[in-house]
Amino acid sequence: MDQRIYDHAEVLVDWSARIEAGDDVVIRVDDGAHDLAVAVAERLGDRGANYLATYISDEVEAAFLRGHDADFEQDPDFELAMLERADSVLSLRGKSNVAEEASVPGGRRSAYKKSRTGIKAARLDTDWVATQHPTRAHAQQAGMGYAEYKDFVYDAVLRDWESLADEMANMKDLLDAGSEVRLVKEGTDLTMSIEDRTAVNSAASVAYGSHNLPSGEVFTAPEDPEGTVHFDVPMTHNGARIRDVHLTFEDGEVVDWSAEVGESALGDILATDDGARRLGELGIGMNRGIDRFTDSILFDEKMGNTVHLAVGRAYGSCLPEGEEGNQSAVHVDMITDVSEDSRLEIDGEVVQRNGRFRWEDGFEG
Amino acid sequence: MDQRIYDHAEVLVDWSARIEAGDDVVIRVDDGAHDLAVAVAERLGDRGANYLATYISDEVEAAFLRGHDADFEQDPDFELAMLERADSVLSLRGKSNVAEEASVPGGRRSAYKKSRTGIKAARLDTDWVATQHPTRAHAQQAGMGYAEYKDFVYDAVLRDWESLADEMANMKDLLDAGSEVRLVKEGTDLTMSIEDRTAVNSAASVAYGSHNLPSGEVFTAPEDPEGTVHFDVPMTHNGARIRDVHLTFEDGEVVDWSAEVGESALGDILATDDGARRLGELGIGMNRGIDRFTDSILFDEKMGNTVHLAVGRAYGSCLPEGEEGNQSAVHVDMITDVSEDSRLEIDGEVVQRNGRFRWEDGFEG
Repeated sequence: MDQRIYDHAEVLVDWSARIEAGDDVVIRVDDGAHDLAVAVAERLGDRGANYLATYISDEVEAAFLRGHDADFEQDPDFELAMLERADSVLSLRGKSNVAEEASVPGGRRSAYKKSRTGIKAARLDTDWVATQHPTRAHAQQAGMGYAEYKDFVYDAVLRDWESLADEMANMKDLLDAGSEVRLVKEGTDLTMSIEDRTAVNSAASVAYGSHNLPSGEVFTAPEDPEGTVHFDVPMTHNGARIRDVHLTFEDGEVVDWSAEVGESALGDILATDDGARRLGELGIGMNRGIDRFTDSILFDEKMGNTVHLAVGRAYGSCLPEGEEGNQSAVHVDMITDVSEDSRLEIDGEVVQRNGRFRWEDGFEG
Repeated sequence: MDQRIYDHAEVLVDWSARIEAGDDVVIRVDDGAHDLAVAVAERLGDRGANYLATYISDEVEAAFLRGHDADFEQDPDFELAMLERADSVLSLRGKSNVAEEASVPGGRRSAYKKSRTGIKAARLDTDWVATQHPTRAHAQQAGMGYAEYKDFVYDAVLRDWESLADEMANMKDLLDAGSEVRLVKEGTDLTMSIEDRTAVNSAASVAYGSHNLPSGEVFTAPEDPEGTVHFDVPMTHNGARIRDVHLTFEDGEVVDWSAEVGESALGDILATDDGARRLGELGIGMNRGIDRFTDSILFDEKMGNTVHLAVGRAYGSCLPEGEEGNQSAVHVDMITDVSEDSRLEIDGEVVQRNGRFRWEDGFEG
């Protein structure tokens, strides 16, 4: 096998999930992630952990859902009991066909998901980590050749996470100390409050409260946005392509919006509930191993030289004790390129200009 | 997909496992059994059952065992809790490489197995069924082309089980009523007691106390064998080929033995413990869909026109209340062809001659 698969397993087990002897570890193996499962199992053995592999196949699930009359039992006990006792759940994503869900009758999947909210909560209550094994299907989704896509995934995953965590700590410190953020580029001039909010240094490790590998973003929960913003990185939401979104905020709410592609899908998102028209997240992408859009939010939102904002639900970890933050049924990230002709200010001081941070060589304040 | 895969799933879920609405069903998906898992999931959905798929890969397990220092935790709680709550466990066998275990350091696999005896017991305490999906690796093991092997598997699995169960009931009735069995063919003249024993009509359904698909044998627990027997169907035990075994019994114990191939492996089996030199099982193979040896005990022992005997442990279901039967760490089946120049007698009456049963056309008493 490619040595990088073993390196990936080592980062996942040691840096990300911090697996120790005796840990009960569930590995969720996607139908295209066999090779990564082999490398992860070897590393888990080396750590003296226990493992149970579950098989995650959209084809199997779609067949089950097609057969079922959609009256699903709530959180079947045998699966819940297993997850409640697990220390870690490692999701090894790697599909054989990213379009498989299209074969399921409408509404059935969401009914199934609703019947499994307790199971999902039990999983998220472990030291869970989600990562990505490169498959041909994901390469196809990214519009890339397979070899090139593998290089892309491993460039994103196999970083010096410790030193990236140190660098990202600079951004976390600035956000934690600041009160107001302003983002300026062509078509964008947006201010928002981050008073009393705590940023998360998402360094691809449960030790940092970060559950994605790759990660490499610093995010917080902004409030009261004012102004306009242009998201020039494309996205796919529930199967719909959306491009070149413009949002205008007044008194913290979206009052005007447009999209060059997928405007009705954008409208559906914003119409979900009141919280869907307010901000839930401001994230600074700092993983320069990710240098292009691949239509996968696991990678896209961590891309170096990008900033993303999410409309909808805020993460509790960013909020002051006792504060609820923005509530919504959705959390939809939208990304803007800040590599050129742009600046990010905190309390009037430029902290990033044209992709360079203030602590880096070549930064021009 | 091949329609026979859907038919296989239907037999497994409906006839074999008797799945009902609300059942918690674990499907153990071997790394080569994906297609069968898809068909089984659809059928489980149709029945209104719940499913959890686990991934059974010798490659993943071997990697784990290679990494581990072999000090295994006894019956990890998260897996045990899941199996204790499951109603059924369906093992969908179908390996990508039947020789994968060779990559594990000696002794480590048996230490791992010993650490999982409680997990195994919990699995065997459910309505479990083991079946076989045809893969190229199993075709290779059988020495057959892939298309031909698929025909072989589906001929064995897709039977009219209800009518075969009725036919096998004849043999069960004869064994239950009888006191002594005698098997006679060239190189074989063996008598054994079946007094007070109860035969199992193994009709590939949990409703018959049968947990294999395919099945198609009637078996009981004989005692006090006297005489000689020649097993002319080859076998593989723990990776060793064994052929043309001759055993001589006196006072119920093996006193003389030989094998043309694998004599030392045979010696190891018989030297395991005292019970390994006594009989644990007499089985009458009645599945004529299985017409050849394929080096897989799941199929071989059910072959029509064969009789098998096992040295070692007896099955409790064949024994009178309160009787322990033969005890041993092993249970090793050996098979003899009875299609020609042979007869099986119960209490002096011929019940099978040259492969024909007494209730069949062409039977010559």
